[in-house]
Amino acid sequence: MKQFELEYQRSHALIEELLSRFFRKDAKYKQLLDAMAYSLNAGGKRVRPVLTLQFAKACGDESDKAAVLGCGVEMIHTYSLIHDDLPCMDDDDLRRGKPTNHKVYGEAVAVLAGDALQAAAFQTILASGYDSDVVARCALELAKSSGADGMCGGQVLDMEGVNQPLSKLHLMNIHRLKTGALLEAACVIGAIAGGGTQAQINAARNYAADLGMAFQIRDDLLDHISTTEALGKPTGSDEANDKVTYFTLLGQEGCEEWIHTYTERAKVTVRAAFERPDFLCWMADWLAGRMN
Amino acid sequence: MKQFELEYQRSHALIEELLSRFFRKDAKYKQLLDAMAYSLNAGGKRVRPVLTLQFAKACGDESDKAAVLGCGVEMIHTYSLIHDDLPCMDDDDLRRGKPTNHKVYGEAVAVLAGDALQAAAFQTILASGYDSDVVARCALELAKSSGADGMCGGQVLDMEGVNQPLSKLHLMNIHRLKTGALLEAACVIGAIAGGGTQAQINAARNYAADLGMAFQIRDDLLDHISTTEALGKPTGSDEANDKVTYFTLLGQEGCEEWIHTYTERAKVTVRAAFERPDFLCWMADWLAGRMN
Repeated sequence: MKQFELEYQRSHALIEELLSRFFRKDAKYKQLLDAMAYSLNAGGKRVRPVLTLQFAKACGDESDKAAVLGCGVEMIHTYSLIHDDLPCMDDDDLRRGKPTNHKVYGEAVAVLAGDALQAAAFQTILASGYDSDVVARCALELAKSSGADGMCGGQVLDMEGVNQPLSKLHLMNIHRLKTGALLEAACVIGAIAGGGTQAQINAARNYAADLGMAFQIRDDLLDHISTTEALGKPTGSDEANDKVTYFTLLGQEGCEEWIHTYTERAKVTVRAAFERPDFLCWMADWLAGRMN
Repeated sequence: MKQFELEYQRSHALIEELLSRFFRKDAKYKQLLDAMAYSLNAGGKRVRPVLTLQFAKACGDESDKAAVLGCGVEMIHTYSLIHDDLPCMDDDDLRRGKPTNHKVYGEAVAVLAGDALQAAAFQTILASGYDSDVVARCALELAKSSGADGMCGGQVLDMEGVNQPLSKLHLMNIHRLKTGALLEAACVIGAIAGGGTQAQINAARNYAADLGMAFQIRDDLLDHISTTEALGKPTGSDEANDKVTYFTLLGQEGCEEWIHTYTERAKVTVRAAFERPDFLCWMADWLAGRMN
């Protein structure tokens, strides 16, 4: 286990280093670049870029070249957080213990920083130096997963679902789009960049879909069983907002059972498709048991 | 002249038809797709997609295939208008005589409709059916022109410039980014798709830069000399906002002289690079003399 934790830490450090290099200060656009860098470099587990890098490795690419593609995915994730926090959306003042983007730079710059991060995500992938066939496929994957049929579509469904009675199926559909789609893109992009077979690319997508489900259920569960201290954000917020979650639908035991089922299925998928699936299995277990 | 006007009308109709097909209603995401289609199909001169199509033709592509790439550029333009109109930006209630996106769908959906249109722009280009080399180059051009070093960067500079004394050079730099960069992308993408030589791609970029300058100066001039009726939006708004414009810096005669100079230079550029530059010359003249 220790070896995978070390490999995660190595990947994480590599990605943090890469991300810190993107939006260096430039006198001309200082405010915009500052705002972009502020949110992009606010830390986090970097689950998506780590998975991009590790799926490329699982396909046989021993270099760290795919990390830059992961940074593109992380820029999409970051822009979505900036826009989600806006007063007209979730109206959050804090994220990871720091003031949200619009609290520091104002709403107008926060909107534009998100917009420019989305463009930067595509630019990063398209200018990554991979063959045009690879970058075109990766960028298309990213566009599909983040737009109306993916993340943005899920966000609207999620907003429409507030104060509505939701079935498990409806909730799963929302999360498949809102958070699952981008996670799928992260894994699939890694598999494409690593020269994976179609079966391996399919496996990356299925692993991500199951991981995404387990991740979201764990999120809902932690909102109930964790402490504000451990989580780094207020707990019990879903309950306070009268929001239907996996916890309200399944209860604690049900959540734990579903997390286990999805995590095991994700592991079976990568074991069948890759010669060296061990890190990906460790990652699934680690995320299933995380406390924040 | 009549033949070019007819060709413009034909291109315009073709693009309107294509644009109307993108976001058909789907029960699942009805609200988001409605909001995207509402702004994308609100009319306009469609200068950018017409130029994409016509630069491909000038390079020898007699088909209308490049129109779909132009639609991608128009989606970027449309998303920028939706976000510009938001209360935290220009706070506009009307655009082209219709309520702005957030007035109809609410701010949260308007933010997401803009975000999803940006993703759709890249998806449209990347899935257009051109070779991966072509789509990768076109999508990279679009990403560079719309992000921090292009449209979004220009937007921040423009906001920072309100109530500041600005030089001509500073104003030109703002507009080169805010509106010029995307116009350049529209023309360059057409030239790439049409299989243009590097000299033709360069000519497309230079023509667009000059056209963009003439276009912006004409805009500022019309704000002073046109009527609200002819323009379809309130005139005198720049003056009321105490904004430095080309009109305040150059006066009416100066504006007319600069428009003439930039327009003539744009025409010289395309005459030197293309065998059939006539439509592009007509377009430059038409935009230079437009009344709205």
